[in-house]
Amino acid sequence: MTGIAAIIGGGVIGGGWAARFALMGWEVRVFDPDPEAERKISEVMANASRVLPMLYEVPMPARGAVRFVPSVAEAVEGAEWVQESVPERLDVKHRVLAEIQAACPVEAVIGSSTSGFKPSELQEGAARSEQIMVTHPFNPVYLLPLVEVVPGAASEAHIARAKEVLTSLGMYPLHVRAEIDAHIADRFLEAVWREALWLVKDGIATTEEIDNAIRYGFGLRWAQMGLFETYRVAGGEAGMRHFMAQFGPCLKWPWTKLMDVPEFTEELVDLIADQSDQQSGTLSIRELERLRDNNLVAILRGLKQQDAAAGKLIKAHDDSLRRPLGDAVPLVTVRRVVPVDWTDVNGHMNEGRYGQLFSDASEELMTHVGADRAYIDAGNSYFTAETSVKYLTETHAGEDIYVTTRVVLGEGKKLRLWHEMRRAADDVLLATCDQFLLHVSLETRRSCAPLPDVLEAVERLAALHAKEEA
Amino acid sequence: MTGIAAIIGGGVIGGGWAARFALMGWEVRVFDPDPEAERKISEVMANASRVLPMLYEVPMPARGAVRFVPSVAEAVEGAEWVQESVPERLDVKHRVLAEIQAACPVEAVIGSSTSGFKPSELQEGAARSEQIMVTHPFNPVYLLPLVEVVPGAASEAHIARAKEVLTSLGMYPLHVRAEIDAHIADRFLEAVWREALWLVKDGIATTEEIDNAIRYGFGLRWAQMGLFETYRVAGGEAGMRHFMAQFGPCLKWPWTKLMDVPEFTEELVDLIADQSDQQSGTLSIRELERLRDNNLVAILRGLKQQDAAAGKLIKAHDDSLRRPLGDAVPLVTVRRVVPVDWTDVNGHMNEGRYGQLFSDASEELMTHVGADRAYIDAGNSYFTAETSVKYLTETHAGEDIYVTTRVVLGEGKKLRLWHEMRRAADDVLLATCDQFLLHVSLETRRSCAPLPDVLEAVERLAALHAKEEA
Repeated sequence: MTGIAAIIGGGVIGGGWAARFALMGWEVRVFDPDPEAERKISEVMANASRVLPMLYEVPMPARGAVRFVPSVAEAVEGAEWVQESVPERLDVKHRVLAEIQAACPVEAVIGSSTSGFKPSELQEGAARSEQIMVTHPFNPVYLLPLVEVVPGAASEAHIARAKEVLTSLGMYPLHVRAEIDAHIADRFLEAVWREALWLVKDGIATTEEIDNAIRYGFGLRWAQMGLFETYRVAGGEAGMRHFMAQFGPCLKWPWTKLMDVPEFTEELVDLIADQSDQQSGTLSIRELERLRDNNLVAILRGLKQQDAAAGKLIKAHDDSLRRPLGDAVPLVTVRRVVPVDWTDVNGHMNEGRYGQLFSDASEELMTHVGADRAYIDAGNSYFTAETSVKYLTETHAGEDIYVTTRVVLGEGKKLRLWHEMRRAADDVLLATCDQFLLHVSLETRRSCAPLPDVLEAVERLAALHAKEEA
Repeated sequence: MTGIAAIIGGGVIGGGWAARFALMGWEVRVFDPDPEAERKISEVMANASRVLPMLYEVPMPARGAVRFVPSVAEAVEGAEWVQESVPERLDVKHRVLAEIQAACPVEAVIGSSTSGFKPSELQEGAARSEQIMVTHPFNPVYLLPLVEVVPGAASEAHIARAKEVLTSLGMYPLHVRAEIDAHIADRFLEAVWREALWLVKDGIATTEEIDNAIRYGFGLRWAQMGLFETYRVAGGEAGMRHFMAQFGPCLKWPWTKLMDVPEFTEELVDLIADQSDQQSGTLSIRELERLRDNNLVAILRGLKQQDAAAGKLIKAHDDSLRRPLGDAVPLVTVRRVVPVDWTDVNGHMNEGRYGQLFSDASEELMTHVGADRAYIDAGNSYFTAETSVKYLTETHAGEDIYVTTRVVLGEGKKLRLWHEMRRAADDVLLATCDQFLLHVSLETRRSCAPLPDVLEAVERLAALHAKEEA
């Protein structure tokens, strides 16, 4: 699913939206009066182009064009999606929303990135309230899946459409059923932020100590299970009721500073900014962004491999982007980007990952000939008996690579594949792999001939590939 | 560093401590009057034994014995570390601490797992305040590194000793310099917990929606950078001061319920417990624990590969556990456990990971012959030209495996290795690898002879291994 997305207001958030849409194949039109907008957005775009494709084992859709236009009207004309990310002032939002509605299609979803306003406030005085809603994302928008969808008076059709589009972008639309100040997630962030300011102000902890208290402890829990499921597990066999009985009374204890807001003096700003400089000041924001993005890729790919939490979403999205292999010779079995978790300290693709890549290639071929999940579940499978990899040219994180696969031998229980891995940019040969597989019965654990359909498909490919080679 | 650790009070937390100590080679003595304690602790121990070794690329120290003893005195006699995890009642803690101090060495650290009491409260009326401190861990204690060390009146020597021991256990001692109710991390948890209760009570969000708002969004950020560094990046080039100027005013907005505590009625408990049942009720607590632990292993290993956040701690700990290879023939180059992120959907070790394992084996051999990090930084390295892997027997997550390596050929720029991978339990051969490497100059990118010391070491090994084989 693609179309035209209008991004009204650039910056970090608008830029993140632009990158998500463009990388998922949408045509993107950006309007932002800031003369710096084009530079800012292209920086976000560069970050996103580097890391978003690393979350996937399949090629990204053909990238959509990003065009900067001189007016709101030109941006939103014919758009299926309009994302408003202008400054958090209600009068500004109302003016921009009116401009948008004067020129955009009635079917378009108009999503606002606002963290501070409720949809009813945005919809006040609108020409068509039914197409306006809050679609609040989280930075970096190009990696984090969460979007809070707060519809207010938006129509069922527009809500359904919004969820469909966000899901197709690889995001998670969290339908916030009742409108409330700050939606859901920011209420937690706000509570933690207040508490953190007190701890720094009172000299209990520095910014770095607070970050360590989070990332070496509960931050790791929350990244995968959130709050309640974590506590459910902590409650143990006795369950959630037991946990609540145990920790309910603490609520009355003076554990947080809560409502009391620290005075936002220059001293407090200086104290925090100085501590933050000391903590991370040796790295530029660009460097920190790269580290953050690499870490997020590693965490998300770790969760993806477990088919859990945010990784489960990405896996499902990956599957939805996967296309059948077709009949081209040679057969392109893998096309992807080298992710950061595949490289060694020098940024080269780790030796072991070549084996994984060729293993992925043969798995694609298996699916192609019908030896898929269902075939395996029914008790049959090809087992790899031997692989020989020749390493010819180094490759690096972020490079676009592909693997072509030939069936060299496909007779009875024997299957021999020849894989070639190349760099997409110049088709340079990076590595080759000679792979020998045997068909086995998972019941007897002995080799045996494949089922007729699979054998026929293998033989057909072997004949096709032999002919082409000759 | 190992010794005797006394665990006073079992349960989930005490069990987690027992597992950490025992798996890191300490002799553990447990005292808990609960007749269920032994069962509970062995369940935690089983979980920990499965996953903690998966964080490491090196073998764990020989596991220490865990013994249940009938009295506090027998547990703490001669102990270097005493961990108190009894129920959160000050009178109970005082009584137990007095019993501990009556029998433990004066040099021992007595750490309390308390989340609710300040060290000054624990130290009140103690025989020797200087050895008592708060050492507050986070569940699961066997995977999460954070320990809040709040010393109160504890002596410098005891504080230093506590940090040293915790670090050697692979944990992160966060020195909380000023005592405060709930230390640091639990203040945040408390603030979020209150807010979450309100959101559920008011029908704004279910427990599952709240978990999703966390784990698909800011939970992923916090797992690696925490709060302040995340915001530093979000502030962009303008930095932390800009961020604070932008978000400071929100503090006055009514974004959280804060001080107002929801009445802890039976209805609220039922509401939350029912929603939690609906969210996760199809899985038992044991199953949830396994999922949580697998996810944490995947996240921590992802961060470890990036040498970032909690993963950086584990990498450093890994290095501290690494031992030189020695001169045994055949040379054991790798000994480790198959981690959950190395397996496919069937729980078998993924084909591609065999290549990685053999690549790790040759890297160990490189270090052994002096072609280490410094050698590479000086412009020389061995490059793998070809590997042939034969897959003989399947292996699974959690299995103990090892690789032996022979130098088959070591002449001039040529190096040929023969690796055999075996299951430690029964020495069954799982796979073999024939690996051919060429020595290259990183400057000219051409092959060349190794530097004399490395060449000599390689030749020595080749002669040694040839002799043994003959």
